[in-house]
Amino acid sequence: MIALFTDFGVDDMYVGQVHRVFAEQAPGVRVIDLLHTAPAFDVQAGAYLLYALQKRFQAGDVLLTVVDPGVGGPRAPLMVEADGKWFVGPDNGLLSRVIIHARQCSSYRILWHLEGVSDSFHGRDLFAPVAAMLATEVTPEHEAIEPELPDWPESLHRVIYIDHYGNAITGISGESVSTEHRVKIGGLEVDYARVFSEAETGQLFWYVNSIGLVEIAANQDSAARILGLVIGDDCRIG
Amino acid sequence: MIALFTDFGVDDMYVGQVHRVFAEQAPGVRVIDLLHTAPAFDVQAGAYLLYALQKRFQAGDVLLTVVDPGVGGPRAPLMVEADGKWFVGPDNGLLSRVIIHARQCSSYRILWHLEGVSDSFHGRDLFAPVAAMLATEVTPEHEAIEPELPDWPESLHRVIYIDHYGNAITGISGESVSTEHRVKIGGLEVDYARVFSEAETGQLFWYVNSIGLVEIAANQDSAARILGLVIGDDCRIG
Amino acid sequence: MIALFTDFGVDDMYVGQVHRVFAEQAPGVRVIDLLHTAPAFDVQAGAYLLYALQKRFQAGDVLLTVVDPGVGGPRAPLMVEADGKWFVGPDNGLLSRVIIHARQCSSYRILWHLEGVSDSFHGRDLFAPVAAMLATEVTPEHEAIEPELPDWPESLHRVIYIDHYGNAITGISGESVSTEHRVKIGGLEVDYARVFSEAETGQLFWYVNSIGLVEIAANQDSAARILGLVIGDDCRIG
Repeated sequence: MIALFTDFGVDDMYVGQVHRVFAEQAPGVRVIDLLHTAPAFDVQAGAYLLYALQKRFQAGDVLLTVVDPGVGGPRAPLMVEADGKWFVGPDNGLLSRVIIHARQCSSYRILWHLEGVSDSFHGRDLFAPVAAMLATEVTPEHEAIEPELPDWPESLHRVIYIDHYGNAITGISGESVSTEHRVKIGGLEVDYARVFSEAETGQLFWYVNSIGLVEIAANQDSAARILGLVIGDDCRIG
Repeated sequence: MIALFTDFGVDDMYVGQVHRVFAEQAPGVRVIDLLHTAPAFDVQAGAYLLYALQKRFQAGDVLLTVVDPGVGGPRAPLMVEADGKWFVGPDNGLLSRVIIHARQCSSYRILWHLEGVSDSFHGRDLFAPVAAMLATEVTPEHEAIEPELPDWPESLHRVIYIDHYGNAITGISGESVSTEHRVKIGGLEVDYARVFSEAETGQLFWYVNSIGLVEIAANQDSAARILGLVIGDDCRIG
Repeated sequence: MIALFTDFGVDDMYVGQVHRVFAEQAPGVRVIDLLHTAPAFDVQAGAYLLYALQKRFQAGDVLLTVVDPGVGGPRAPLMVEADGKWFVGPDNGLLSRVIIHARQCSSYRILWHLEGVSDSFHGRDLFAPVAAMLATEVTPEHEAIEPELPDWPESLHRVIYIDHYGNAITGISGESVSTEHRVKIGGLEVDYARVFSEAETGQLFWYVNSIGLVEIAANQDSAARILGLVIGDDCRIG
């Protein structure tokens, strides 16, 4: 299985061109679109989202992971084997949370490249062909590298994603909080509820969401609209 | 074939996680995204949309159907065999139009469950694994149930969907109207046209759309913008 | 491989219904969503986008191409074999840039049709079944036709797409410009940069994008917002 995690957007022509590469170069492999709306240019938010979302994948799966504002510049192309899963993407910190938490991990600079590759779309021209190779048990040319590991906290106390319901996902690990805590966000303090249907309609609450992160929500309403939240806003546990 | 009908949105990480389950648990089965923008939390609109959209599916197909504001609460998990098609989703009325119109129909409470399942994402953790089983001819544990059948009309006289062109789909069956009728909506009365190209550019009209429902449209323009429509607005046949 | 290029949108129920047809009628064929957000009703913008995007496809591939404001009217249903690739869609100019640039090209009116087909969704009811036939080496009934070839320029000096980053894609061929040129757009003159990371954060520049077209961008910012651009805006090379 190949899974795609990018900021390419679902509306544009970028994802389709990547799928064409896989249809040609890994025709027998299932490809799934995990997320294409990682916050644009926001490598840190992407790193925490990716770490949460990749936990259910298994050894042998290949994840193409691209949030890459520095494409065409000096950042290295990276492939990482972490607990048997392969990750392919830019060496800019996006994979750092995966690398730090892996029990076994090896990081490599990708040396394989095509002639005449675009300077602006390595997702299509470099990372996708490499992911197709790894998914079909071909090893592209590579060398060992020390990957970028920014000095980021274990829990990130800011909003890293707002979904179409208006739920605000934070970078705070659900394991670091308890149900007596309140979350301070958007000028308010929000109490815990186990699940949407335990809150009144329109009531704000926080809970540990299905990928293990603290999320601010409102039952059948938009927490982001009620609180005026945007990606990057701070939150505190109190 | 497994088809997905949900309000999970196309932008977010929910659909991709469901696809990961199918890639793992029903690897030989084709999965298609029928609609992921059913109006959020709006079970009634979803029920009429789903009934119209499922007609072309065939015996043996499995539809995962989730609009589920009560997830984690007391509503039952449901699997329904209707005219040989399987439907898997919450027992909250979403499947009621399918059940009422089926020639042969059996409804079951799903008893199968995973330990440690999320309280907020039964689409991924309960309904998707059950749909994968049904698509691979495994029968999950179940018992007979009387499903929720709300007292809703045969035709629903409100807007149940607005598409990206600005066309407004109603819950009115095309079989219940004739071309001499006018549709009263947004303070105006709109005449029939057979097809877009028979209306003047920018002209409002109604027609029976490709899924058999009365739809308000404007040739190469947005009927929703012209009329100021939102989902839930009333319409009348006059 | 079947690839889809349409203005059906990614949010709505149109793409999913087309995928159902392929799952039924071409079950062994991979289907990829190349682009579903071609500008609605804008055949000319679609023609230049499609020509740029189809270059990487190969002989034997089938492209379903639908931007079809005249659906249900007199325009012919068209199938085109261009350099071994098949294109299926309306005969309204959408395929004209492909036809004009092909080394070998044959155009046919599609005579095959289903009884009781919808008047409004030929993408599902006519073009998709024909694409499924061509992808499975069945030839639908057809006759030779002279396709619509509008008198359009080799490079189109207007914005034909704005992506979710805010990059503005023009219809200007990258081969027709050199790096000393400036692009006049939105009241400003914009200089060339090779790649995003060579521009300052927030700085406007133009470059030749990954599908060979001149594109106006800003490093980690939205060029469309900065310049107030919409699809159709003029641009000039100076």
